Amino acid sequence: MIRTTSPAISPSPKGHPFAGAFAMLGPHMAALNLFLQGQLAAFEPEIRAMVNYCIDTSGKRIRPALVFLSGWTDSEAVSPDLVRAAAVVELVHLATLVHDDIMDSAEVRRNRMTAMREFGPTAAVLLGDALFAHALHLATHFPTTEVCAAVSESTRRVCAGEIVQSMRRRSTDLTPADYQRIIDLKTAELFRVSCYLGARLADYEGGYVDALDRFGRHLGIAYQIYDDLADFFGREEKIGKTLGTDLANGKLTLPLFVLMDRLPPFERETLSGEIGGLQPSQPALRLKQMLALGVFDAVEAAVQGEVSAACAALAEWPGHPPTHHLLALGDVLLAQAASLRPAG
Amino acid sequence: MIRTTSPAISPSPKGHPFAGAFAMLGPHMAALNLFLQGQLAAFEPEIRAMVNYCIDTSGKRIRPALVFLSGWTDSEAVSPDLVRAAAVVELVHLATLVHDDIMDSAEVRRNRMTAMREFGPTAAVLLGDALFAHALHLATHFPTTEVCAAVSESTRRVCAGEIVQSMRRRSTDLTPADYQRIIDLKTAELFRVSCYLGARLADYEGGYVDALDRFGRHLGIAYQIYDDLADFFGREEKIGKTLGTDLANGKLTLPLFVLMDRLPPFERETLSGEIGGLQPSQPALRLKQMLALGVFDAVEAAVQGEVSAACAALAEWPGHPPTHHLLALGDVLLAQAASLRPAG
Repeated sequence: MIRTTSPAISPSPKGHPFAGAFAMLGPHMAALNLFLQGQLAAFEPEIRAMVNYCIDTSGKRIRPALVFLSGWTDSEAVSPDLVRAAAVVELVHLATLVHDDIMDSAEVRRNRMTAMREFGPTAAVLLGDALFAHALHLATHFPTTEVCAAVSESTRRVCAGEIVQSMRRRSTDLTPADYQRIIDLKTAELFRVSCYLGARLADYEGGYVDALDRFGRHLGIAYQIYDDLADFFGREEKIGKTLGTDLANGKLTLPLFVLMDRLPPFERETLSGEIGGLQPSQPALRLKQMLALGVFDAVEAAVQGEVSAACAALAEWPGHPPTHHLLALGDVLLAQAASLRPAG
Repeated sequence: MIRTTSPAISPSPKGHPFAGAFAMLGPHMAALNLFLQGQLAAFEPEIRAMVNYCIDTSGKRIRPALVFLSGWTDSEAVSPDLVRAAAVVELVHLATLVHDDIMDSAEVRRNRMTAMREFGPTAAVLLGDALFAHALHLATHFPTTEVCAAVSESTRRVCAGEIVQSMRRRSTDLTPADYQRIIDLKTAELFRVSCYLGARLADYEGGYVDALDRFGRHLGIAYQIYDDLADFFGREEKIGKTLGTDLANGKLTLPLFVLMDRLPPFERETLSGEIGGLQPSQPALRLKQMLALGVFDAVEAAVQGEVSAACAALAEWPGHPPTHHLLALGDVLLAQAASLRPAG
């Protein structure tokens, strides 16, 4: 059934890593939800219910938040341009999630069935395509081609990152540089373009737009490293998706790199076999080893390093309205990463 | 390996249904191939070889031909704008093929392995996405958002058509109206937008642009009905892809509708069971029945009806340069449909 009433606004869903920093965005997120619901009518009647399933309001809406905060001004009003740009980046993100979940055969995301599970892989491929296409269509409603150009290029980069990741799955010769490249493309790119678009649409000067662009990129890298740490140390009911999938799927992420580096040679070979899919993965053992060998600390330090780099990009612009809010966002991410640390 | 030299130009690949009408497009197709090869550099190095595999030159390039012919003027020069628009619609089409082949688990297309078979379904999903994204990025290089808006909307409609088709697969209560709707979205839409863009970029007057738009839509419907007929009556080595897949996959197309309608009730039930996947399909028997019951004639007449409707759209504009070439294209399609008829 197509939900015809606007759903309750929940700008701070359970487990939202940035919930604290988003409190002020209530009206913005409400406007975004309303706008997204309004887009349903643009889709062919036959697929509206599926699209509605995908644009549900339980998402974290991090990228829209970056658009809103990077375009923050002293005005109280919610800018319709920012709402539209936020919808564009969110729809692109949702489309990539729909396609990711096919590839990961993921069953649960945001505490409910994935689109892949709900509608089958075939419909999910096409539904993701339709979301992409509509995102780019919305981007053409700006006066110039700039937004559409930026978003289509970012989308291609996100896909390239995902392809590289999927091709290197179960590959044990992945280097930390490869990992950096993958997360730069698959995650940091859309964070970056969100900040860029917010700043551009708020008409900030070139130097500040560049600074926000750099902020977004580093925050995106920090966020992905946090997310990779959460795959090992998070609690499913809090994060809202199946965890522990990276080791099981042979995805070599930073926590595994560091563990690999610190294990004695024989143990390293066993772990390598788990990543390569030659041996069943032993998540409990790996978690124990990560704690014993200080892997958590090292990965948390990497998150801190990227958040610092993000904040440093804004150092020259202390007085601009977005700066304060974005720095606070960095702090919230650090607090979230710290909160993953197991007690005791 | 990435192919670094420009491949030989083959505007008339084997089995090309429109080969005769495309002879004059040699320089245009050469320019298009060169342009597409030039786009490889825009993709991340890691995925260039895959992209190159997809943009191979053995495709029929029907949609680019529609762009070129609809934008035909008395000038001899190949218009760079038309080349760009042709590349946009072709990349969108190639992206949909890559995704279609995943869903159909198709092994062969254009006489070689599909991207799905070559790179696996995961990479194929993302590769299709990257092609879509780049197509829309190319569309942003026009001065206004018009091309990008038209193409992104068409893309969404194509996907919606594919979703409806995949959801109705093995459904025996599909009506001819449903079939019409599906092919209107999944095929006619991109034919239509190709004609529209060609005419707009050549700066033809509004009435003629509308006429070409209608021509494109009807030709697209005609082409899909031809293609559905070829799935039964074509020869694989000529068509270059696995045939007989519609019945096996439970896709109810016009030849099957007509056959269903003309079979005695008991036989109809058996065929219904084949489409529903309850019984193994009997392609040889169905082909024999189609010939005996005049199904070929009826479907050929449907192709003729749509080609007539396409040509009628141009009746008021006999003197405009595209008209003559597009009418010839209709004739070639009719000849191709006729050539599917089994001898004897």
